[in-house]
Amino acid sequence: MTANSETNEYAARAERAQAALAAVKCDWLFVSHSTDLLYLLGFTKRPSERLALLLIPREGRAKMVVPGFELPVFQPYASYFDLIGWEETENPVAKVREVVGEGASQTIAIADQLHTVFTLRLQAALAGANWLEGNRVLARIRMVKTAAEIDALRAAAAKTEAALESLLAQPIAGQTEREVLRSLHQGLVDRGLELSGGGIVGAGANSASPHHKTGDRRLAEGDALVIDFGGGWRGYRSDITRSFHLGEPPPEFRRIYQITHEAQQLAFEAVRPGVTTEEIDAVARGHITAAGYGPAFLHRTGHGIGLDGHEYPYLVKGDRTVLDEGMTFSIEPGIYLAGKYGVRIEDIVAVTADGAERLNHFPRELRVVD
Amino acid sequence: MTANSETNEYAARAERAQAALAAVKCDWLFVSHSTDLLYLLGFTKRPSERLALLLIPREGRAKMVVPGFELPVFQPYASYFDLIGWEETENPVAKVREVVGEGASQTIAIADQLHTVFTLRLQAALAGANWLEGNRVLARIRMVKTAAEIDALRAAAAKTEAALESLLAQPIAGQTEREVLRSLHQGLVDRGLELSGGGIVGAGANSASPHHKTGDRRLAEGDALVIDFGGGWRGYRSDITRSFHLGEPPPEFRRIYQITHEAQQLAFEAVRPGVTTEEIDAVARGHITAAGYGPAFLHRTGHGIGLDGHEYPYLVKGDRTVLDEGMTFSIEPGIYLAGKYGVRIEDIVAVTADGAERLNHFPRELRVVD
Repeated sequence: MTANSETNEYAARAERAQAALAAVKCDWLFVSHSTDLLYLLGFTKRPSERLALLLIPREGRAKMVVPGFELPVFQPYASYFDLIGWEETENPVAKVREVVGEGASQTIAIADQLHTVFTLRLQAALAGANWLEGNRVLARIRMVKTAAEIDALRAAAAKTEAALESLLAQPIAGQTEREVLRSLHQGLVDRGLELSGGGIVGAGANSASPHHKTGDRRLAEGDALVIDFGGGWRGYRSDITRSFHLGEPPPEFRRIYQITHEAQQLAFEAVRPGVTTEEIDAVARGHITAAGYGPAFLHRTGHGIGLDGHEYPYLVKGDRTVLDEGMTFSIEPGIYLAGKYGVRIEDIVAVTADGAERLNHFPRELRVVD
Repeated sequence: MTANSETNEYAARAERAQAALAAVKCDWLFVSHSTDLLYLLGFTKRPSERLALLLIPREGRAKMVVPGFELPVFQPYASYFDLIGWEETENPVAKVREVVGEGASQTIAIADQLHTVFTLRLQAALAGANWLEGNRVLARIRMVKTAAEIDALRAAAAKTEAALESLLAQPIAGQTEREVLRSLHQGLVDRGLELSGGGIVGAGANSASPHHKTGDRRLAEGDALVIDFGGGWRGYRSDITRSFHLGEPPPEFRRIYQITHEAQQLAFEAVRPGVTTEEIDAVARGHITAAGYGPAFLHRTGHGIGLDGHEYPYLVKGDRTVLDEGMTFSIEPGIYLAGKYGVRIEDIVAVTADGAERLNHFPRELRVVD
């Protein structure tokens, strides 16, 4: 893409946000530094104590209130909005009120990740406003990816798998969980991926804790092993989980592995436009429950992925998002037997016109490692 | 410290939070994943879409509402509070309401960095409550560091300076800003520091933009250069800025360097218990203004530092925090001449019984580099 077509893409996203504001009868969308801002601007920073807030009205031109001395930083991105700087001794919320008015009877969608300290100040300054979760406006837009976005997710997935394959090219027995995770992170960096700071390596009984905190346990023959990690490629995230066994696994491990593998495949095959997210969850959960392990599948079946590692939609009972072409999410059933071992198998998939495409291609068959 | 004394330290911090709740006549403190949680628990994760919320009452035993399948992760930290798990198909906010009641006439302090999406849900569920910025309770505690915390900040500062010194051991002309920043980050990692993802390298006219976005400009003879970066040591952050010149600088650059250097020194000498933060700002600003560059000092004089790179107190006109022994913050005056060059000199200092200690020792005299 040229710089100009990129600029057009962000302006088009802001227009879609305006259409979404109209659809939910909302007057304003407020967005600060976050993946939401990255989506709408092509730029964001870590949130700080200095407010920077993009104000998109349902109709008309957007404004952005930013620290005055950062105006040169924002200027290159200010294609479809006007910048308003605030000085260090000024109250930025007062600047927001100058744009929006006192807020009486207005409805304002406020981005999910805004730090609460700003929300409390905005609520005090715009006392008459009704406040709406920003995802009501932005999730419906961000959930459906363009071909370019799916390309980035595909590249992130491929590079992440290469890092995992590289780890397993050498024996890992004797290393600690933390050392294994560090090697995986180095593998991501070596392939040009951005680190996001997470990742799970759970060995032995630790593999039965789905969000195990990677620690100093040393991997040994006879251990189950769950590896769950990812990075970012041009902002778009990868997330893959594979389960292994160091040396020959016991029969029950083979059994829960096979059931999880089947559940993952069945859920994948159920994905197509028109199906709801909770139906996909029900497919995976139904298979595991029928095999007698329902209570051991401790979490939902999956989550959306894009600029955030976890984003809308969520594949969980009660979520009735209707799948549409271009949506991307994980399918990651698991079975966890406390005190013994656990299995989780996770791929990212994209909804196509008549089904789904896996963005991950790392083998899903049980692999015995050493 | 032994594991046990660490546990006691976190329980003591929670007790201080309870005393602070009483002081501001507040009933509850709510804290989710953030540096606030790290401070109170010794553990935090990146915020996610799953609510984990520590609920500290003004009196009595605290509770923490966490995802049910993460109970094994939180258990080791649950010394002074009880854990309450929520299942994937449950509403965590309903669990919070079971603990707190409907909130009628209660005042609840809610941590600054909580994602707004949760605050809106909590406000809907606890419709009668009054909401207070969490910093009203936590900043007064976190601002004053223990000797162990200052030791960590000192170590972070020293290791960061070593990374800067290592960069300058070789010529840097010809590298891009981004390459220089990458080298600095590698230098931090090599010394065991945690990366926080920020950092500014501004060359030539870019040095006149205080928060310049590090880019692809190549450093060349005749460039001014501002480097502002840091990392984390056991969670505690460093933050140092030095300004350089590639080759012989013009007389005006020498002049603004000298004025900034003097302002930094004068502000440092003004620090002692009992003085307010805005008085320190006034000292630095007064010197620069007297020299004729007041409007070119575009930002406040400094910010607190600890588990966050920027935290309370802020050294800015209007902030009347009274300095106390153990407070730690930056002193970082600057002069920025748009289109030409800028200078900023930043050290971290700790307030002592009768003055201040610099935690940075990198020379502040003008250094010509190549």
